[in-house]
Amino acid sequence: MNKVGEFHFTTEPYLLDFKGQTTIPMIGNYLLHAASVHAEERGFGYSGMSKRNAAWVLSRLAIEMKDYPRMSEQVTLYTWVEEVGKLFTNRSFELVNSEGKTLGYARSIWAAIDRESRRPTLLDVEGLSVYLTEKPVPPIEKPGKITPVEQTTEGIPYTVKYSDLDVNGHLNSIKYMEHLLDMFDLDLFKQKNISRFEIAYQSEGKYGMDLSLHSAEIAPDLYNMAICHEGKAICRAAVSWQ
Amino acid sequence: MNKVGEFHFTTEPYLLDFKGQTTIPMIGNYLLHAASVHAEERGFGYSGMSKRNAAWVLSRLAIEMKDYPRMSEQVTLYTWVEEVGKLFTNRSFELVNSEGKTLGYARSIWAAIDRESRRPTLLDVEGLSVYLTEKPVPPIEKPGKITPVEQTTEGIPYTVKYSDLDVNGHLNSIKYMEHLLDMFDLDLFKQKNISRFEIAYQSEGKYGMDLSLHSAEIAPDLYNMAICHEGKAICRAAVSWQ
Repeated sequence: MNKVGEFHFTTEPYLLDFKGQTTIPMIGNYLLHAASVHAEERGFGYSGMSKRNAAWVLSRLAIEMKDYPRMSEQVTLYTWVEEVGKLFTNRSFELVNSEGKTLGYARSIWAAIDRESRRPTLLDVEGLSVYLTEKPVPPIEKPGKITPVEQTTEGIPYTVKYSDLDVNGHLNSIKYMEHLLDMFDLDLFKQKNISRFEIAYQSEGKYGMDLSLHSAEIAPDLYNMAICHEGKAICRAAVSWQ
Repeated sequence: MNKVGEFHFTTEPYLLDFKGQTTIPMIGNYLLHAASVHAEERGFGYSGMSKRNAAWVLSRLAIEMKDYPRMSEQVTLYTWVEEVGKLFTNRSFELVNSEGKTLGYARSIWAAIDRESRRPTLLDVEGLSVYLTEKPVPPIEKPGKITPVEQTTEGIPYTVKYSDLDVNGHLNSIKYMEHLLDMFDLDLFKQKNISRFEIAYQSEGKYGMDLSLHSAEIAPDLYNMAICHEGKAICRAAVSWQ
C-alpha cells in the first residue's frame, strides 16, 4: 500500500456556498474523510484504534487555500504522515485540481485518547513510523498557539444541539468551524476569501452546553476567535482573509 | 442509460449521529446527490436546466426508514422518475443495505423555476417522460398537506447564517431539516427513531432573515412543525417517531 493516500472528490452543486465555492467546513470534511480512510486502510484507523480501546482526536488543523474548488470540479486530495511522536502525530494534505494545480495545503496534529478515560494515551510510534515518507511537508506554517480573545470581546451565545453531535456524542469538529465562520458578515465573504484557517481543539463540547463565540480582528484581515464554555476556551481559531 | 439510477455510498464514521446512525439530513444529502447526478447524466440536471435558464426546486419530500445505516455500512440508493406533469415531477427512492434489505423509501415532488424571475416554469414533459419506468412506486404515502402549528405554538428564534446558504444564496434544503430536528430533545432521539420525515418547502429563506421554529405533538409521537418568517410559513414538516 502506498504511503501517500490519494482521494478523488467531485464538488456537488448543492454543497457549495452562495459564491459557488467549496466551503472551509466542506474541505474539512474532505480532509477528515481522507485521513480516516488512509489510516483505516493501513490498520491504524477507527477499527485499529478501537481494538486498542483508543480513538483519534484532532488537536490542531491549519488549511491554506490559494483557490477554491467550484461547481462540479474534480479534485484530488493527497494525505500522508508527516511526523510521529509519542503523544502526537502530524498529517499533511495537498489539494490539487484536475489540471494538476495546487489549490491548497493543510497540516494537522492528532493525539490518541483512551476511549473510557478520554485521557491522552501513547501512540504506537514504531507502527506509525512505517508510513513516514520522503514527501516534503507543505510550504505552510504548522498550526500553533493562538492568542486568546475571549477576555476582550463580547461573546455570542450558542447552545449545542443534536445536529452538532458526532458519534461520540461530542460537538463535531466540523461544526466548530461552521459556528465560527457564521460570525463573519456576509459582506466579508462577498469581498474576500479565506486564505488561512487554523483551529485548535481544546476540549469537547457536549449536548446542551451553553457556549459563547468570540471574534476579534487583531490585524487587518486577521481574526482570532474562540469558543468558550463558562469562560474557558474549548477551541481557538485564527482566520486570515485575502 | 438505465432509467433507474443506482448509487453506492459508504457511511462515514464522522458523519454519524451520537447513536452511530446516519441522520435524516445526511440521508437527505444522499437523496439530493442521487437526484442531481441521475438527472445530470440524462440531460435534465443542473447544466441541462441552466441552458433553459431554469433550475430545479425541491417542493416536497417524504422519507420513511425501517432501519438506519450504521458505521461504515455500504448502502445502495435507487432513484427513478415516478410521474411527470406540466408543473411538477415526482421522483422515488429506495435505500437498500449490502444484504439487499430495504432500509427505507422516499418520494419527492420537484418543480422548475425560471432563474431570474424565481417563478414556476413549465417542464419539458415529453423529454422527461422518456425516463418513466415500470418500477412500482414505493409503498409509502406521497408527501402531502401538513396542518399549520405556528398559530398555536411559541416559536424559537433563528437567524439565517452563512453556513445555511446554498449556491443560490438561499437557505439550503438540508439546513431546514437540521434546524427542525434540533428542536427535539436528545432523550427522544435516545428512546426512538424517526420512522417518517416529511417536509414541504414553501418559500426561500435568505441571509439574515429572522425565522421562528415551531413544533407541536399533534398525536402520540407525531409532530407537525413549521419554519416561519414574519408569521408566514416558509416550510412545514411532519415527523413520526417509533
